[in-house]
Amino acid sequence: MDNLGDKKWRKLTHFVEICVIVVIVNVFVACSTNANLANSANNDGFITLKEQGSFAVGGVVIKNKQGKSYYSDHAYVFYQIPVNAKAYPMVFAHGIEQFSKTWESTPDGRDGFQNIFLRAGYGVYLVNQPRRGNSAKITQSIKLEPNFSDEMWFNIFRIGVYPHYFDGVQFPRDKASLEQMFRQSTSTIAPKQDLELYAKAYATLFDKIGSAIFITHSQGGPVGWKTALKTNNIKAIVSYEPGGEFPFPKGQMPELGRTLTPSGKSEGIEISREDFLRFTKFPIIIYYGDFLIKDKKDETKYPFSKAWTLRLELAREWAKLINANGGDAQVVHLPEIGIKGNTHFPFSDLNNAQIAELLKAWLKEKGLDK
Amino acid sequence: MDNLGDKKWRKLTHFVEICVIVVIVNVFVACSTNANLANSANNDGFITLKEQGSFAVGGVVIKNKQGKSYYSDHAYVFYQIPVNAKAYPMVFAHGIEQFSKTWESTPDGRDGFQNIFLRAGYGVYLVNQPRRGNSAKITQSIKLEPNFSDEMWFNIFRIGVYPHYFDGVQFPRDKASLEQMFRQSTSTIAPKQDLELYAKAYATLFDKIGSAIFITHSQGGPVGWKTALKTNNIKAIVSYEPGGEFPFPKGQMPELGRTLTPSGKSEGIEISREDFLRFTKFPIIIYYGDFLIKDKKDETKYPFSKAWTLRLELAREWAKLINANGGDAQVVHLPEIGIKGNTHFPFSDLNNAQIAELLKAWLKEKGLDK
Repeated sequence: MDNLGDKKWRKLTHFVEICVIVVIVNVFVACSTNANLANSANNDGFITLKEQGSFAVGGVVIKNKQGKSYYSDHAYVFYQIPVNAKAYPMVFAHGIEQFSKTWESTPDGRDGFQNIFLRAGYGVYLVNQPRRGNSAKITQSIKLEPNFSDEMWFNIFRIGVYPHYFDGVQFPRDKASLEQMFRQSTSTIAPKQDLELYAKAYATLFDKIGSAIFITHSQGGPVGWKTALKTNNIKAIVSYEPGGEFPFPKGQMPELGRTLTPSGKSEGIEISREDFLRFTKFPIIIYYGDFLIKDKKDETKYPFSKAWTLRLELAREWAKLINANGGDAQVVHLPEIGIKGNTHFPFSDLNNAQIAELLKAWLKEKGLDK
Repeated sequence: MDNLGDKKWRKLTHFVEICVIVVIVNVFVACSTNANLANSANNDGFITLKEQGSFAVGGVVIKNKQGKSYYSDHAYVFYQIPVNAKAYPMVFAHGIEQFSKTWESTPDGRDGFQNIFLRAGYGVYLVNQPRRGNSAKITQSIKLEPNFSDEMWFNIFRIGVYPHYFDGVQFPRDKASLEQMFRQSTSTIAPKQDLELYAKAYATLFDKIGSAIFITHSQGGPVGWKTALKTNNIKAIVSYEPGGEFPFPKGQMPELGRTLTPSGKSEGIEISREDFLRFTKFPIIIYYGDFLIKDKKDETKYPFSKAWTLRLELAREWAKLINANGGDAQVVHLPEIGIKGNTHFPFSDLNNAQIAELLKAWLKEKGLDK
């Protein structure tokens, strides 16, 4: 053992650690899959709903000089409650340019998280945030134009570098699926994003429906952190590839240097210590997929991968600080636990059933599956 | 009898006719309600789904000078198929300023047609037409601004004359329901309506899913007529309060004089005789609600009621011509069969269960309930 240098030793123990985690996760996923099959009320493959419906939540009313009104800035919510539903339903927040489709059936038509978690007994609330999709109203004049950004999203979503798919990417290779993916984006009906406004609508939803688990994606990640400051009804946050505005207590935002987006701005924000401590009151899990930067020389080649790599790093700093303050935050980089090939959309990737099993196991561990 | 003038006699027989129809319909609705309860696979009140999912259909791709693409002009479809589904699912088309919410749970949170017909065993395809709601993309630059039209829609929808509700209107009187109604409209992401474009997307949907029943509303009515010229997969059209572009064979568009909208334009259009005959190949039923003009002197007082009254008249002329050519078209003015108080949205009004029973009975009569 003395022959091994410190550095090599750390590498070896790190390698062993990862092997152990891989084995544990695999056993764990296998067990929970069996448990799930054994316990499921839906062995017939059917989804049995106690109720479903939709409503608008939040928003404002403005009036013109003639006293005529315009209702705007609400979110649109479609919900489904299965029979014998678990105590806490799930609220789903989409990301930038997306809408509830994020969580619905996948680009190649398989079950998305909506169906998977309905089958598992969770109520689901699929939201279109204000100024998006079915709630496409805004209180001001705006101009919209085609943004010709489909190929850019292919890259940002880490499916590959357009038109090339990453080797082993968990995204179907047929043209029809890619077209569905491109058509699942919709216009932002606003001159710019307004995360506070979105969070306000989500908080109103939580206050309306009571305690629930918040599942967020991408820009929905920071919307989730902001929502948690406005409602006491969040039982847990599960965030897939959150991007932007990790909220650190004043004076404790890490100056990693590297922890910057391509725009050159840190993606952390500062909040009061009191507000920060809210994130220690419920469990948080954050997942990132594959195709992040392993070697600094690839940063220029894959600028979008670089951005997500930096977000992963910042997420880890954030979780560390939450845990140091008595909280329960975990960051999972999927390839590190042996789950490879995931894009920015792990919950709709080809292996999304496996991704869902991971989440089910975590919810069980936290007692949120009753 | 000789004492009665011709006019009075006609009035009396008309009155007796209506009384007979009222009795028949009431018996009929009562019977079919019982039959429905007896036969339903969903006596537990649950909705059991074999599958559900969503997809984009139709649309175009445009490219900019740099060869970057923008996918646009598709429709977004959310579908649900119950267990033991009937042979023909229903495709639902919304109207102007609306989206699929039209058919979802009502402004006061009761079952809408989506749930009612799922419970009755029909697959449902809820569509957002191109440039609306979840498919809010367009290939050109556009400007959007708040239209402050909520009070106008209250009037157009014949809930009343804002802020007064019509006596006996089948719309809930609480403030929250009205707010939900106002928030169920969403922006048209286009400088103007394009019924041909919408119809093209619907036709692509019918060609994808096969034979189905088309349920349309308001501006969705003319979209439905246009769709029928582009696909052979429409088994029936059920249109609630269709507005505009009734397609008459060339040279046979009625010049009723009165059959004009407030804009002064006839709402009929001319198509080839060959195309017109397509409407004789499947059954058609058209429903209009209450609060239409009975007395010409009210036309100025209720300009929106006038417009819908003229549409009812034109619908009757159209149905007459279809039937004269061997087709099967029926126009039902709900108050004439004893169903009173309906707005422009009979399928979500307080008596929508009764409205649904009427439709179920008609579908049964046409052999479309197998």
